[in-house]
Amino acid sequence: MIEISENSLTLRIGNFELAHSEDFPIFAVGRGENTYEMSHGNFNISKYYNEKIPLRKFKVLSKNENQCEILFFSPSGEELKSKFSLIADKLTIEILSASKNLNRFWIYIPTYESEEIYGCGEQYSYLNLRGKRVPLWVSEQGVGRNKRDIITHFANFKDDAGGDWHTTYFPQPTFVSSRNYYSIVHSYAYSEFDFSHRNFHELEIHEIPQKIEFGTGNSLIDTVVKLTKSIGLPNPLPDWVYDGVILGLQGGRDVVVPKIMRALEKGLKITGLWIQDWEGKRITTFGKQLMWNWVYDENMYPNLPEMIDQLRDMGIRTLGYINTFLALEGSLYQEASKKGYLVRKPNGEEYHVVVTTFPAALVDFTNPEAREWIKKVIKSNMIGIGLSGWMADFGEYLPTDAVLYDGTPAELYHNRYPVDWAKINAEAVEEAGKMGEVVFFMRAGNLHSARYSTLFWHGDQLVNWSKDDGLPSVIVAALSMTMSGIGLTHSDIGGYTTLAKNVPDIVVTKRTKELFMRWAEQSTFTPVMRTHEGNWPDENWQFDSDEETLKHFARMSMVHYALKPYIKQLVEKYAYEGKPIIMPLNLRYRIENTEELKYQYLFGEDLLVAPVIESGQDTKKVFIPDDEWVHLWSGKRYTGGTYEIEAPIGYPPVFYLADSEWKDVFEKAGDMK
Amino acid sequence: MIEISENSLTLRIGNFELAHSEDFPIFAVGRGENTYEMSHGNFNISKYYNEKIPLRKFKVLSKNENQCEILFFSPSGEELKSKFSLIADKLTIEILSASKNLNRFWIYIPTYESEEIYGCGEQYSYLNLRGKRVPLWVSEQGVGRNKRDIITHFANFKDDAGGDWHTTYFPQPTFVSSRNYYSIVHSYAYSEFDFSHRNFHELEIHEIPQKIEFGTGNSLIDTVVKLTKSIGLPNPLPDWVYDGVILGLQGGRDVVVPKIMRALEKGLKITGLWIQDWEGKRITTFGKQLMWNWVYDENMYPNLPEMIDQLRDMGIRTLGYINTFLALEGSLYQEASKKGYLVRKPNGEEYHVVVTTFPAALVDFTNPEAREWIKKVIKSNMIGIGLSGWMADFGEYLPTDAVLYDGTPAELYHNRYPVDWAKINAEAVEEAGKMGEVVFFMRAGNLHSARYSTLFWHGDQLVNWSKDDGLPSVIVAALSMTMSGIGLTHSDIGGYTTLAKNVPDIVVTKRTKELFMRWAEQSTFTPVMRTHEGNWPDENWQFDSDEETLKHFARMSMVHYALKPYIKQLVEKYAYEGKPIIMPLNLRYRIENTEELKYQYLFGEDLLVAPVIESGQDTKKVFIPDDEWVHLWSGKRYTGGTYEIEAPIGYPPVFYLADSEWKDVFEKAGDMK
Repeated sequence: MIEISENSLTLRIGNFELAHSEDFPIFAVGRGENTYEMSHGNFNISKYYNEKIPLRKFKVLSKNENQCEILFFSPSGEELKSKFSLIADKLTIEILSASKNLNRFWIYIPTYESEEIYGCGEQYSYLNLRGKRVPLWVSEQGVGRNKRDIITHFANFKDDAGGDWHTTYFPQPTFVSSRNYYSIVHSYAYSEFDFSHRNFHELEIHEIPQKIEFGTGNSLIDTVVKLTKSIGLPNPLPDWVYDGVILGLQGGRDVVVPKIMRALEKGLKITGLWIQDWEGKRITTFGKQLMWNWVYDENMYPNLPEMIDQLRDMGIRTLGYINTFLALEGSLYQEASKKGYLVRKPNGEEYHVVVTTFPAALVDFTNPEAREWIKKVIKSNMIGIGLSGWMADFGEYLPTDAVLYDGTPAELYHNRYPVDWAKINAEAVEEAGKMGEVVFFMRAGNLHSARYSTLFWHGDQLVNWSKDDGLPSVIVAALSMTMSGIGLTHSDIGGYTTLAKNVPDIVVTKRTKELFMRWAEQSTFTPVMRTHEGNWPDENWQFDSDEETLKHFARMSMVHYALKPYIKQLVEKYAYEGKPIIMPLNLRYRIENTEELKYQYLFGEDLLVAPVIESGQDTKKVFIPDDEWVHLWSGKRYTGGTYEIEAPIGYPPVFYLADSEWKDVFEKAGDMK
Repeated sequence: MIEISENSLTLRIGNFELAHSEDFPIFAVGRGENTYEMSHGNFNISKYYNEKIPLRKFKVLSKNENQCEILFFSPSGEELKSKFSLIADKLTIEILSASKNLNRFWIYIPTYESEEIYGCGEQYSYLNLRGKRVPLWVSEQGVGRNKRDIITHFANFKDDAGGDWHTTYFPQPTFVSSRNYYSIVHSYAYSEFDFSHRNFHELEIHEIPQKIEFGTGNSLIDTVVKLTKSIGLPNPLPDWVYDGVILGLQGGRDVVVPKIMRALEKGLKITGLWIQDWEGKRITTFGKQLMWNWVYDENMYPNLPEMIDQLRDMGIRTLGYINTFLALEGSLYQEASKKGYLVRKPNGEEYHVVVTTFPAALVDFTNPEAREWIKKVIKSNMIGIGLSGWMADFGEYLPTDAVLYDGTPAELYHNRYPVDWAKINAEAVEEAGKMGEVVFFMRAGNLHSARYSTLFWHGDQLVNWSKDDGLPSVIVAALSMTMSGIGLTHSDIGGYTTLAKNVPDIVVTKRTKELFMRWAEQSTFTPVMRTHEGNWPDENWQFDSDEETLKHFARMSMVHYALKPYIKQLVEKYAYEGKPIIMPLNLRYRIENTEELKYQYLFGEDLLVAPVIESGQDTKKVFIPDDEWVHLWSGKRYTGGTYEIEAPIGYPPVFYLADSEWKDVFEKAGDMK
């Protein structure tokens, strides 16, 4: 509904409203300049504002029932021509033109005391963002991510790499409100969404965006479904992905094959072997790192295509690794450099970025020839040798002072770089005719990544129990991704970042046996189970470090496999209908405090999961919502209330709906020995 | 000179210029709101701006050769009526009126690449502030003051008390430019002076200020002298202050008197005994702390007035301690509470602030009766019993949500609170007829503190060698105070903040013998030498911890005493003519990089001091400016260049001008055995 009077303007869909008056204008505009300092993919951003001018006046240029064009302006001459379209449950604002030289934009949304806000892409520390000012910038997530944490302090001291509660690989200019509306800002510019005010939200965009979209739903879950569809739906996962775990191993054929054999013997259900070092490796002060020249390494994996075939015959797919860089020592770099496919500095030289310890060149995705070239590399060197998937790593490192082929300012392209990286990977798979058979997984992302990438993983967690960067953080990450319309997520079982060598004793962080087992239990109740050895494999507890772990992990792989029919239909309902997979409880139940319950989740509507995320626990307090729930392992029934649940290793608190149509599947999973 | 054309406006004095055009307006205005979180006198301040509107248009209301009234405005209706007066070397801008509801103000000053900026009150980390955005807010200086420092991290973890490079007890909205002009903003509101831009400085004030002043000088030193006079000159120090060291002791009569006797025996030249615990003490987790009820403690100091008289007969003055708080256990609190002299909360209750470990009430200086009352306390309980001085501590803790007697918003009074604290102390001394005999010293301050307080000390340094918070930082503090027009400063010899108990091993920081001796050497070449035992006296090295230290300290006290005639005339030239005392080299010499040389200084024009500020040094690289300089200890002559100078303990690199009229004084000091 559009209401216009002489001095005010109201736009309403459902119970969402935008209201304009002289005292409370919808828009402000201005000019500003940011300074970006990058250290290993971590950014220190200083903002300066020349001016911030509310557009208090407006003039209706045209109007019918569901659409109007309105000129907002200030007496000093700043103008914004906008078009509002209301179609059913959706309000779209298009900015048709703006005065020259404006590069800052603010939109104001009225709010109410009790409103909660979720989303903004992948958030690790907070699910409810009300009270926060959320920067949206693609970057490393940081190590520790808590200014009071000694590890964060140490990481900052070394490389400004400690991060903060909001640093993320995958920000997204969207959010969902507990008042059953969603918002999408169509812009890749640096932005800050400010939910810290009592009476209004302020979305600040560092350009004049083209389009902003609001939609309402009948319920919170309906709102999320609508956002999810609007963001873009991917294909379902390949069927083989559900058939067990994807085992992350490395070290060459002679190391990985015997490990697989032993694991199979012990009953581990393996569906994939992920060898990130398929292209060779190097040793650095950060650990064992990869070669970054996307050609398989004949020394480590002699006749790799044959090995891939043999494994496939055993029901095991092989996955590799690629990222946005090219190692300066490699043949691909030579070729790309000669052809001019690399990101440049203002002085015309190639931009070589130090990622961890060595410099590498970045492929320029704004160059159509470079995109075709890297797609060809994927198609021939990866899909061509039989790989069924890969980690498509990185996407956060485009420097803001880079010079790009198509002339786009790097500051405005930075947040889009990982989206194009996803698109390139997707196109390569599509062109090879392998969509639905190949799975690649990414950590970096932004608006529309969801429609391109086949799967996401939560990035490089610390191998510990910390809320901001350890096991608990992957649960919040999954939930915030869901609330951002992205359904297919998983994590490195056991975490990745190990602080073991060249660090002071006080920050040494190595994966423990207990952490590995608890992390595996949580991953069992996500779409995909995959391990990672971490950056210092020898210092971390691994799936086969002792018999007990291997036995526990084998059983978990069987539980996950037993759930295949249930998980597969969840993924299909997400891919076809936009239905969320890993859900906060408030998508189904009336919950008082979402934030307090954020470490429990629904895995589909029929499973309630409350992973053990602290060390030394053998019971856990669990909130059971209304409905009758059956404890997966004991068959004991619970309903509405908080219970202390037995949770020894191997038996995390998981419940299924008593009247679920998947009861047989759950019983089978629960009976797994 | 005032030049006005249709679209532009230029105001020029000397080589300072303000220029207005539509594209580069002088002023912007706006509205905003800050959120302040205080933890133990440390503040976390979040800023929000509703709008920032450049005032591009202007209208001349009246004009003659040296004065004009101009209305600056924006087409949207924001107005600022201002009066510009040019008198000789001074440009004054008065803001006569402004549109209602404006509470943010910006003024723009053109700048040039090579310009350096000094001042902004007491700055510990940087002397040249070009490239920095400097917040001006009275607060604790912080512990560590460097985000990369483990001590800062630890202090933040405990109490948000770590600070940063800009946190200071004594900010001041003034600066001096290497282009020979100074600026004074007459406002106590939260401000940020932004010197980080290439073409302009931006001074941001969180209110509409009444007056801004610019002045030019013929040279940098002439500019500093003019600022100094404009800020306000104090009385010279009492003559007795120069007669040796002021010894900070505590523990009661039976502890301090024997210590004095032993020190005198060993040749220590003592002019004052500073007993901060004259009013009793308490033990807390932070160390031995004081009672904060400003009445002498009969138990610790039985018949204190008699002891004071006896010491005076020996040539030793006694000094005490007071601060802005009243302990809740004390008789003075009872009285002040009954009379309603205390700062209140919004709900009407008294505001009890936790300073370190216990809560205390704050005296409301906006209440004239409360001011008279606390002055009476000083006059009768302190001056009345014979005290010749005291530390007038604190002044940073006024909470921004406090409710004050006269209705001033606490947010706007916060930065002025220490200035009124200085004024109260000064009036008490004046009214007791003791000005010129009594010395009180403060750490907190702001604009006009200089004219009230008799002396400043640099606050609570860490007992270590760190640049941001240890021995080196007091040199930069003294220099930045000089560049802010404040001449009388000194520090706690050996520093104050000791991290000894209830802290992890990694941050334990105790005063070493070497640090004490080097700090004493530096203090010898400042107006006042005073020791402090620190917050954990038993864990710190003290002046009498061994024979060698006592001997070294006695000799330093004699060197300082030998310099009395020179120091006294320096202080008088400051107090009567505004001449700086502790100077950066560029006040006298052409220096390429002020910042690199900031740990050397001129003590008056005739002494060059390059204190040893690192551990384990016995030589030091010293820059000797042009002119002929004589090494104080060896008589060796140096001129223009950088030299490696012998600097064993007891003989820091100090030089005097070969042709100084004070040659005899320096020779005597240099010969001191």
